[in-house]
Amino acid sequence: MVEYMAYKKRGRKLKLCYYNGEFKSLEEISIPITDLLVQRGVGVFDTLRTYRKRPHAMSIHLKRLEESSHALGIKLPLDIQQIIGVIRKGIAMMDCEEVQMRIYVSGGDVFEDGQFPHPRFFVIFEPLEKAPRENYERGVALAPIDMDRPFPHIKSVFYLPAYVGRRDDKEALEVLYCPDGEITESSSSSFFMVIDGRIVTAPTEKVLDGVMRQIIIKLAEESGLKVEMRCPLLSEVSTAQEAFITGSIKEILPVRRIGSQHLAQVNGPVSQYLQHLYSAKIEDYLE
Amino acid sequence: MVEYMAYKKRGRKLKLCYYNGEFKSLEEISIPITDLLVQRGVGVFDTLRTYRKRPHAMSIHLKRLEESSHALGIKLPLDIQQIIGVIRKGIAMMDCEEVQMRIYVSGGDVFEDGQFPHPRFFVIFEPLEKAPRENYERGVALAPIDMDRPFPHIKSVFYLPAYVGRRDDKEALEVLYCPDGEITESSSSSFFMVIDGRIVTAPTEKVLDGVMRQIIIKLAEESGLKVEMRCPLLSEVSTAQEAFITGSIKEILPVRRIGSQHLAQVNGPVSQYLQHLYSAKIEDYLE
Repeated sequence: MVEYMAYKKRGRKLKLCYYNGEFKSLEEISIPITDLLVQRGVGVFDTLRTYRKRPHAMSIHLKRLEESSHALGIKLPLDIQQIIGVIRKGIAMMDCEEVQMRIYVSGGDVFEDGQFPHPRFFVIFEPLEKAPRENYERGVALAPIDMDRPFPHIKSVFYLPAYVGRRDDKEALEVLYCPDGEITESSSSSFFMVIDGRIVTAPTEKVLDGVMRQIIIKLAEESGLKVEMRCPLLSEVSTAQEAFITGSIKEILPVRRIGSQHLAQVNGPVSQYLQHLYSAKIEDYLE
Repeated sequence: MVEYMAYKKRGRKLKLCYYNGEFKSLEEISIPITDLLVQRGVGVFDTLRTYRKRPHAMSIHLKRLEESSHALGIKLPLDIQQIIGVIRKGIAMMDCEEVQMRIYVSGGDVFEDGQFPHPRFFVIFEPLEKAPRENYERGVALAPIDMDRPFPHIKSVFYLPAYVGRRDDKEALEVLYCPDGEITESSSSSFFMVIDGRIVTAPTEKVLDGVMRQIIIKLAEESGLKVEMRCPLLSEVSTAQEAFITGSIKEILPVRRIGSQHLAQVNGPVSQYLQHLYSAKIEDYLE
């Protein structure tokens, strides 16, 4: 706990990072240039947040992190209980209302026999940064791109499309992957569109099995709403009732437009109802 | 030159890195975890080598590095003359016969207005590591995958497919991007297939404009060989005469098989003739 006290003594620091067994101010942490994360983009991560300083859906996030790592040939360098310990300790050290965390596992310096035997592990702790209120009221814009996210089941650090795909639409919050006009997911969120009263979203064969996605689908089905697992089409935007994206930090964020096509309703009854259902169930997922 | 003398004094070190204005042993260099290269895979690079300790096709490589950076919204933090200075100094410091270099430009910590205004820059210098002789004699295996390389004109650090795509074929040297059966390029090389006596290779709209690719096409055309710019098909492998991949380090490397399909000839007359033409012209590209 030496490093914890030293951290506290230096006074309030906004961002914290766990790396190599220590917690330090994020700005103090570097990783070797020899790591394949730096040289070849080999790394996975997962994001989660707190409510009332307690981590939300932590077990589901850590299971997914383990699956992403495994799919890439990386064995988690800490076991799940150790990671939970790091998360709890980091949250306790953060001097802010709510915390968001990103847990990274890198490829390390070595690739042999199809595996990365010496991965590096770090967790970034930051004060929760939710999108501004007006995004929830006015909805957000998405920039459609005609490609899919490579290896959708692996939550990798590959976010080039998220930057390159928005250069012509700076108002867009995220890019929306739409290979051949089929909407799969956006760069940092799951995507849902309400068509003829049904909630349509891509099947998990084609997208990341988003934690918020799982929760929203469960809540929708339990409340009697119809959920259809197929890719919504770009050609259906003009006749859809509403659309929204979901993510662990953003919860449910209404979509105003996709490229040049505007949705009929923003923050319509389905978006609002699901947000209401979600808020009522947050407690169930705190650990 | 202080750091240069310090480096020499410590005796022979195999790998060197230029970063933040200094040359150090590669193992000593780290980059901040806040860099978007670490967190989001935002970075480009280029690879070149020496012959007789002189950099080969350096101007073409640096022009491409500049284009990759620009396409991603990164302005090179050093101008080309400064980079050339770094390369020449690094080569002089390397205590080995020939040198290979990778020049990286990262996204830095900030993305705003579609740009990365504070990129980081580093160059890794290593002793040249060519593939073993037997690869040139027996040819190499490639593992075809049904996807294209995202943003083919940007030489980014995204190499996930190169690892994931070879897990079922550990003998394969590289993956071969074959979206819908059309062969574009392999993970670290340009690809050529000889069909009915013509050299067939994907057009630059679909692949990276490889420096070795440019040189080989020029040499082939000057010598009267026919070059056809279209994607060779996976379905043509069984009737093709030979195939090879090219890259700045590997030069011309014959292909033995693609997935389960074997090429009729390995290191056949076209591969050998082009290697001969290339070797005769190396001098022209030394700077």
